[in-house]
Amino acid sequence: MAKQTPRTLSGFMELLPAPQQQLEHMMEILRRTYSLYGFTPLDTPVIEASEVLLAKGGGETEKQIYRFQKGGADLSLRFDLTVPLAKYVALHYSDLTFPFRRYQIGKVYRGERAQRGRFREFYQADIDIIGDGKLSIVNEAEIPAIIYKTFSALGLRRFRIRVNNRKILNGFYACLNLTDRAGDIMRTVDKLDKIGPEKVQAILTEEFAVSPEDAGEILRFIAISGENEAVLTALETYRGRNEIFDQGLEELKTVVRYLSDFGIPTENFAVDLTIARGLDYYTGTVYETVLLDHPEIGSVCSGGRYDNLAEYYTDKQLPGVGISIGLTRLFYVLGEQGMLNPKLPTAPADVLILPMTEDLSPAIALATRLRENGIRTQLHCENKKFKQKIGYADKLGVPYVIFLGENEINAGIVACKDMSTGEQTKLEADATIYRIRAGLDARRDGAVILE
Amino acid sequence: MAKQTPRTLSGFMELLPAPQQQLEHMMEILRRTYSLYGFTPLDTPVIEASEVLLAKGGGETEKQIYRFQKGGADLSLRFDLTVPLAKYVALHYSDLTFPFRRYQIGKVYRGERAQRGRFREFYQADIDIIGDGKLSIVNEAEIPAIIYKTFSALGLRRFRIRVNNRKILNGFYACLNLTDRAGDIMRTVDKLDKIGPEKVQAILTEEFAVSPEDAGEILRFIAISGENEAVLTALETYRGRNEIFDQGLEELKTVVRYLSDFGIPTENFAVDLTIARGLDYYTGTVYETVLLDHPEIGSVCSGGRYDNLAEYYTDKQLPGVGISIGLTRLFYVLGEQGMLNPKLPTAPADVLILPMTEDLSPAIALATRLRENGIRTQLHCENKKFKQKIGYADKLGVPYVIFLGENEINAGIVACKDMSTGEQTKLEADATIYRIRAGLDARRDGAVILE
Repeated sequence: MAKQTPRTLSGFMELLPAPQQQLEHMMEILRRTYSLYGFTPLDTPVIEASEVLLAKGGGETEKQIYRFQKGGADLSLRFDLTVPLAKYVALHYSDLTFPFRRYQIGKVYRGERAQRGRFREFYQADIDIIGDGKLSIVNEAEIPAIIYKTFSALGLRRFRIRVNNRKILNGFYACLNLTDRAGDIMRTVDKLDKIGPEKVQAILTEEFAVSPEDAGEILRFIAISGENEAVLTALETYRGRNEIFDQGLEELKTVVRYLSDFGIPTENFAVDLTIARGLDYYTGTVYETVLLDHPEIGSVCSGGRYDNLAEYYTDKQLPGVGISIGLTRLFYVLGEQGMLNPKLPTAPADVLILPMTEDLSPAIALATRLRENGIRTQLHCENKKFKQKIGYADKLGVPYVIFLGENEINAGIVACKDMSTGEQTKLEADATIYRIRAGLDARRDGAVILE
Repeated sequence: MAKQTPRTLSGFMELLPAPQQQLEHMMEILRRTYSLYGFTPLDTPVIEASEVLLAKGGGETEKQIYRFQKGGADLSLRFDLTVPLAKYVALHYSDLTFPFRRYQIGKVYRGERAQRGRFREFYQADIDIIGDGKLSIVNEAEIPAIIYKTFSALGLRRFRIRVNNRKILNGFYACLNLTDRAGDIMRTVDKLDKIGPEKVQAILTEEFAVSPEDAGEILRFIAISGENEAVLTALETYRGRNEIFDQGLEELKTVVRYLSDFGIPTENFAVDLTIARGLDYYTGTVYETVLLDHPEIGSVCSGGRYDNLAEYYTDKQLPGVGISIGLTRLFYVLGEQGMLNPKLPTAPADVLILPMTEDLSPAIALATRLRENGIRTQLHCENKKFKQKIGYADKLGVPYVIFLGENEINAGIVACKDMSTGEQTKLEADATIYRIRAGLDARRDGAVILE
């Protein structure tokens, strides 16, 4: 028979079993952490009607989207989890209870030009809190706690959550009568880290006709940095000139005020006046998260406050705040950087049982008993040599191998080999189970990510 | 602004938060159970190259598939998890260790005609064990154990795993010189439960030119039923006439022999000579699972042994055995039948904290402490009346509400209301946490499915 060459499309991540286990660990940690903060899991279709998904229309989105016809219907694959959430909340509004907190970890699709580390199918892990009409600033203050808890649970310590408030920026640019160019200016300022202040100043004055005085004013403003309290004190000197600015400053102070109550160490948090996170969507607090030793990765968790989640679907005012982790890209980059803990177990089983008798009853009964004790167990009954079977456990990294021969069965004991130490015990089944469980607990006592 | 009416495509399941939690519970149970038996999680792309996905080609599949062009490439959405597995194993053959045990819970797509209870996007939950060249019969004997454990963990007791062996059927029909019509005959016999033996006999003789004697022989054969041992004894009387039959009988005896060692109660298992599960794929043991009180649902978990997983991609002989649960459909039917346990918690949080003071520090610190103790906690800081906040907990089914006013803060205690009993305690934080955890454990002590 002629064969079809098997292949996976470029830009689509398909992992081998061991790295897949690492990704599953990460997803499990995200699910658990998000749940701790009262977010409910949601799952929306991957396919939506094109006119629904593209209600906002325009831009890069439409070019990248996977769009097609089926049975006369115009369909598209979701390109993020926010638009489907907006649709969901508008559609099910009367069945939901607000504030509505949901998390969603799901695949999204963008037909970008294929390049290393860029994916066309990738997981996003989003949380959003949606209010009906209003939403307390405390929700915005809580978001850094969730980011902190998530990344610490993954094993990271050297990361920083950078926070700004769009009202502060908008108010500041309004004071300078630069509201019409605020978008261009923020985009330029956003490059400060990369191109330096001189270049920023040059672009502002040459490309966007900002006066040298205003450009200087802008550079002085975004240079405000340091400890949270110092930044807030510096910002106080701008108070009283613009109502929106003052409101933004109050909000930022609330966010900073509750940091320690939310359990966020000060070294993991910084007010950063340079970040803006896009232009037309966010209206209050905005967030970025950077790995301190890997700034080149960019932000690994971003988001912010918005006033109007579902304006394309409903007249209802639905303000919210949310963050998103680009999980597939994060996982890829961590792998590239060698930051995925190789010691964390990735084997499909905790124990491999090698029956050494023709009658398999004792081996199967033992497997059943181990499983009843929550131990992931595989029977190896293939017609292979002993050495090959040991090699199987070795290759997969199965931590324990149990041999069950006539002698062991007659003596009512189990021979169990710890594959990492080579130590072999001959104990009763209960004692063996106890030993395996203790060993597994110790092995699992590691984080997914290593710094 | 003109609004786009929000809608979800018909044939696409989109759940409200409470049922979504129930589905998540089910998925979590599937993941845990599959893991106990040494299966590793796998995740393959939803989109594949059409020529890869349709390598086998033909039939209903091609009509139902979501297929489209993007950037000059001919793409399709996967319609099951088996073809992507075949591609995966052929593509990554040299990186895998055999026997290779994987589970995958993922969405698949079929553009079927929309009708009640039929879905175009639905979850399948599959396990497969793939051998390299050979695969021991013990794997086939283990599958019913996994089915049993899965459905018991979901809360079911009144179900039965029906098992047959294709070699027995093929051998039997070969004895009657009916191999050329075996497919048609099996399809007809498969309807026995629905149309009765007379109709089966009529179809066999009239449509497929089976002689009345042979038709009688077939009906006597498929009427063999009863306790496992009785069926095996009856089958023994056919031994010696056909090699394939004898081989199938040996395999079936092995499967039955180890049932109790695998922990499968006899009432949950039956040899059933009428089932065949499709025609050209399975070659050994085949499985169906029926709910005894809901036979109209049909099989909720099916599969079998096959000789050649990836024949369209590779010359390698890759035999395997696998089963699949149509999770979305199962979930839908359970809901329709009122079999989803309404008592299992579906709230997004275990505790709702209502701060009664302007300074939110104590409330936030308490939330942080509860979360550190693994209690899913939400702060309710919106500007609403007390009654509305209680109503919020009530609507979502949040089991505990904590009030934190000046008095409690000053006294170092916490007022906590059990929303189901109305009982309110005023205890220190630690004692409150202890009480909440005990209460949560008791609440979680229920199954997802009720019979």
